[in-house]
Amino acid sequence: MGERKEVFVTVGTTCFDKLVAAVDSEPVKAALFCRGFSHLKIQIGHGNYFPSKVSRQPGALEVDYFTFSPTIADHLKSASLVISHAGSESIFETLRLGKPLVVVLNEDLMDNHQAELAEELASRKHLFIARGPHLLAVTIERMDLELLVPYKPGEGEGDQINTSLKLTSPCEGSANKQEKGEGALISKSKAKKGTKKAAQRHQDRAAISLARGSEYDENDPLSSSYGNIPLEDLQSKFITGRTWTDVGELCAEMKGETVLIRGAAQAIRPTSKKIVFLVVRQSMSTVQCILVVTKDVISPQMVRFATSLSKESIVDVEGVVSVPDKPITGATQQVEIQVRKLYCISRAVPNLPINIEDASRSETEFKKAEESGEQLVRVGQDTRLNNRGLDLRTPANQAIFRVKSAGVNKGRQFLLSKNFVEIFTPKVIAGSSEGGAEVFKLDYKGKPACLAQSPQLHKQMAICGGFDRVFEVGPVFRAENSYTHRHLCEFVGFDVEMEIKEHYYEVCDIVEELFVEIFNHLNDNCSKELEVIKRQYPFQPIKYSPKRLTYDEGVRMLKEAGVEIEPMGDLSTEAEKKLGKLVSDKYNTDFFILTKFPLGIRPFYTMPCHDNSEYSNSFDVFLRGEEIISGSQRIHDPEMLTKRAEQCGIDVETISTYMESFRNATRLHGGFGAGLERIVMLFCGLNNIRKCSLFPRDPQRLTP
Amino acid sequence: MGERKEVFVTVGTTCFDKLVAAVDSEPVKAALFCRGFSHLKIQIGHGNYFPSKVSRQPGALEVDYFTFSPTIADHLKSASLVISHAGSESIFETLRLGKPLVVVLNEDLMDNHQAELAEELASRKHLFIARGPHLLAVTIERMDLELLVPYKPGEGEGDQINTSLKLTSPCEGSANKQEKGEGALISKSKAKKGTKKAAQRHQDRAAISLARGSEYDENDPLSSSYGNIPLEDLQSKFITGRTWTDVGELCAEMKGETVLIRGAAQAIRPTSKKIVFLVVRQSMSTVQCILVVTKDVISPQMVRFATSLSKESIVDVEGVVSVPDKPITGATQQVEIQVRKLYCISRAVPNLPINIEDASRSETEFKKAEESGEQLVRVGQDTRLNNRGLDLRTPANQAIFRVKSAGVNKGRQFLLSKNFVEIFTPKVIAGSSEGGAEVFKLDYKGKPACLAQSPQLHKQMAICGGFDRVFEVGPVFRAENSYTHRHLCEFVGFDVEMEIKEHYYEVCDIVEELFVEIFNHLNDNCSKELEVIKRQYPFQPIKYSPKRLTYDEGVRMLKEAGVEIEPMGDLSTEAEKKLGKLVSDKYNTDFFILTKFPLGIRPFYTMPCHDNSEYSNSFDVFLRGEEIISGSQRIHDPEMLTKRAEQCGIDVETISTYMESFRNATRLHGGFGAGLERIVMLFCGLNNIRKCSLFPRDPQRLTP
Repeated sequence: MGERKEVFVTVGTTCFDKLVAAVDSEPVKAALFCRGFSHLKIQIGHGNYFPSKVSRQPGALEVDYFTFSPTIADHLKSASLVISHAGSESIFETLRLGKPLVVVLNEDLMDNHQAELAEELASRKHLFIARGPHLLAVTIERMDLELLVPYKPGEGEGDQINTSLKLTSPCEGSANKQEKGEGALISKSKAKKGTKKAAQRHQDRAAISLARGSEYDENDPLSSSYGNIPLEDLQSKFITGRTWTDVGELCAEMKGETVLIRGAAQAIRPTSKKIVFLVVRQSMSTVQCILVVTKDVISPQMVRFATSLSKESIVDVEGVVSVPDKPITGATQQVEIQVRKLYCISRAVPNLPINIEDASRSETEFKKAEESGEQLVRVGQDTRLNNRGLDLRTPANQAIFRVKSAGVNKGRQFLLSKNFVEIFTPKVIAGSSEGGAEVFKLDYKGKPACLAQSPQLHKQMAICGGFDRVFEVGPVFRAENSYTHRHLCEFVGFDVEMEIKEHYYEVCDIVEELFVEIFNHLNDNCSKELEVIKRQYPFQPIKYSPKRLTYDEGVRMLKEAGVEIEPMGDLSTEAEKKLGKLVSDKYNTDFFILTKFPLGIRPFYTMPCHDNSEYSNSFDVFLRGEEIISGSQRIHDPEMLTKRAEQCGIDVETISTYMESFRNATRLHGGFGAGLERIVMLFCGLNNIRKCSLFPRDPQRLTP
Repeated sequence: MGERKEVFVTVGTTCFDKLVAAVDSEPVKAALFCRGFSHLKIQIGHGNYFPSKVSRQPGALEVDYFTFSPTIADHLKSASLVISHAGSESIFETLRLGKPLVVVLNEDLMDNHQAELAEELASRKHLFIARGPHLLAVTIERMDLELLVPYKPGEGEGDQINTSLKLTSPCEGSANKQEKGEGALISKSKAKKGTKKAAQRHQDRAAISLARGSEYDENDPLSSSYGNIPLEDLQSKFITGRTWTDVGELCAEMKGETVLIRGAAQAIRPTSKKIVFLVVRQSMSTVQCILVVTKDVISPQMVRFATSLSKESIVDVEGVVSVPDKPITGATQQVEIQVRKLYCISRAVPNLPINIEDASRSETEFKKAEESGEQLVRVGQDTRLNNRGLDLRTPANQAIFRVKSAGVNKGRQFLLSKNFVEIFTPKVIAGSSEGGAEVFKLDYKGKPACLAQSPQLHKQMAICGGFDRVFEVGPVFRAENSYTHRHLCEFVGFDVEMEIKEHYYEVCDIVEELFVEIFNHLNDNCSKELEVIKRQYPFQPIKYSPKRLTYDEGVRMLKEAGVEIEPMGDLSTEAEKKLGKLVSDKYNTDFFILTKFPLGIRPFYTMPCHDNSEYSNSFDVFLRGEEIISGSQRIHDPEMLTKRAEQCGIDVETISTYMESFRNATRLHGGFGAGLERIVMLFCGLNNIRKCSLFPRDPQRLTP
């Protein structure tokens, strides 16, 4: 494909759509291609015309564009030809680099002073001029690059060009490279009043205001290296193309590199007026950043600025990665950042209701502190939940919800691979799905309605509707007044319903495969998250070789262990716990299925056993001795279903559409429902389901 | 690993856990392994003891188990040794096949008549006996297979064994292979009353009742080949290990194979008393099945049974695949099934409110019929939705929800690959998320609450809570009285919220990548589904090279096309449609983003433009000229947010926890919300959003 020859097009911070459109036009692209150029990069500024991006292909230019960049120096350097609007900054920066330049005049501008500068420089053969975008193609075709005369920096000083110059566009972050020549040319009136230093300061101020902030100390020559970024500059004003490094990716291999990170200032620890340590956090990772007063690099004012930051404020830190001799204990990353620049994006109020470091401590840390007589602040569950937006910032919470996301998505992927279809059933329904008074009621356009306690009826209706296998992940609502560690009024139901060919064990098979798959995936792919959770909430990994027992066998095991139990009644929470212990001891697993439950304690739609109507084709699944799943074969026969509903005291009128479905003939089917938060809680050995709900809802909590 | 030598263990339909446990014990497995056996297959019947499955590995038996099978003949045939309970059926079937047999007596059975038979046969050296499971290992170790005397079928007739025989367990589907000897032995009293034919019929009846059904014609020797399966047999009574073939997989390559399918009898077309055609449907696929009266294969009674089936009844069809000379037009699969067996699993009521063939027709078919003077039944939208459980069975509906599932999951996978975390936010909230009166209100334990109109506030709070990038797929609720083709009161929101580094175009970038990825995936992987949809609802595939325009540019295009438009007002549905046409014509795409909307028509949390507060950093996304997505940069500054909320008349008290979150400092962020049903509707060119909601909710519809 030959040598890379790039054309760089810039409109600065102006809007000059006609130029961009002209460059994007076939005649100009053809002219450039014929002149041997291979790449076209366009900086479109505030324009509304977006060129077509073109990937490399034979016989055509590769085309790319972007909007803004604080410095276009790199683009200019790699260019073999520059096409620019008539902005003086762009012109001088290009000429200083000795690059061939075509300036395109914007005829739409009234009072176009810039044109004069361009015309003057063109007359000195420093550049070519196209007096309007429509003339660009012909200018490119005809230009003879050999004729150009190199520009000599400083040439313009005191020159007649100077007098006519009034800048209308701001400069483009070229402050550091500004030389006295154009600096004087551009801001002669100001330069006249002061010294070169004043001119430099003006440039710095412009640079800060453009790309960083406006607060700075007039007397600090390093004031452009820190400050608060004004809100205006955060309203999608720029696209600089800079790259931010994730805090979690910082490692010793990056030693010596300059990196830019954005995160929360979790801790700010000045050790003197000359040194301050910042711990900057991004999701589960933290890094230590150091500012030490150093001539020409870090001013005392900059250290003061860093010290004055409020905890949790969002900062941009630019600095050099270094590797300290001793391991770092106060942050997750084993490198430090020697800060060079520090800007505040968003400032937190000074007194936050929760200190993230307090909220992140483990019981072990509290105990150690107690032993050494230290008083650490404990953050209670209610304080956490009342200020969930802060509480969620602890590494453990960041990890818990990543585990939840990873687990549920692995589950979906497994089911999809087994030909399940994901469905979405209505949450506002006419009747109560499973009976009982524990439903949230509402008025639906004058009709009585309630929130679905589960997708039970509708997922079964989907099977009636011809789907072989379906699943749903969605909210379920329980108005129960349960104040336990494992009940919520709103949680995420993970529901499966499937055709059964012969036996409800087919459903149990799916349960076992599904959860073994999920647990394997979490252990294999979320080890970092699990470590982070363990650091605050230590737990033993679960053993999950699946085991099946009948309900009767479970009852027998309990009896043999001396636990009194109603043989045909439901298991109490304590009995469940005990059984979990017994099964764990005997079969070395925390994950088991209890089948063949007594019919009397199951919902009306549960299929009775074929040989003993006291029992049912149903099961519960247990993890660490707590129930996580209920499932069964469903009654597909309309007569039997009606009979059972009536026996269970269900008002069949309110669920008539469900009851009717079965009259259209339905395949054998079964399924199960799991509570997502409960699974995450038990997998991670947590003590409260509220820890696994982003914004939990219980009988007393409706906010945040 | 040497030759395969299999041990088959059977307990028939009894529960004989001690035998299964003994076989699963190390001494027995070791004894078998030492005797050169490589595989152990256990039929555990009604037992509750589940052996450990063991995969092939050096130095150990491979172990597998199952519960029931209608015929164990194949297992017996492939076995080199059989271990059985003392059931006479199992014993005789094994001996007839000339297989070495060890019978294990069940000491727990009172009045164990079977033991007598086993003892007698053991005394004749036809088998070995273990007088209890605890003696099995030693029996295996010591048995000398050379000593066994082959059993001669019929040997028992009139014998003294006979007289002591009373069967306690049902036989095991060996009807067809029954020979007169044991037949007489087993049911001598009955055999005495009748003929050999009567004995045969008894066996047949047992076989039907066990595996198939109880309704049959006493006088039809083929009565075991068809009938209604009694409900009891469908209550997870058996695991036969049979394999059902999916209708969609039936193809010409299977010619001559015997297959078993389960599906709905969509059409039943008798052409005479001797021939009937069934069209059997499973999800999107149908196959033609033929019954022709044939001596010893299909009786006239069987054809009568098939003809009497009601449409949509669920049937098991066993038959031989054949390939007709002419292409099949009445079904999707290009093969026929020559039926051999036909059982009804679930019978539909005779007069269904919807005929699936009527509900599956395209407009083209209706037009053709009209032209030829034929009167076809049209099924209206309300009839469909009122009977959604039937309506969903049409192939197009089966396909639409598969496309929805595939699309949303591809979207999730894409976002996960870009480090987004899936979250679940509460649907019951204290305030209204976006203002306005269009919320469903409810009482939450005495507190006023409402259903979330979007996860807007909570997904932003998740960003405040330290998550970089989140998404949610979940229900959203709108109490609007909109009766259009594109509004629902409950639909699936696809919501994304993410940190912005600099510019809200970062969000637009994600939108473009996400949807191009989804659309590519659907075209590449759901071509069958899309074809099925097109067959009933023809549509042009969308063109989706993304294009970005500003709102002003869109307005200008409309004006140039003569459309009157309020420059700072919202686009009407008509204007949107028109703009979609204009963009499609000019840029050859149906997928574009309109950026920089007027601030006045966006929600209070939308970030204004940095240089013109009349405009905002926001966008809408359009597909085929209809809005599918709204997005923006959000205001992260608490003061600006409060000011904007007040300007927009929001009661900030009701959303105080949201407002407070920003005081803890928050990164720049933005996001968007899409409506899943609307995307599916537009991608598939459908005319009504209700077609894309499984059980739609609109202002008048709360059921089914």
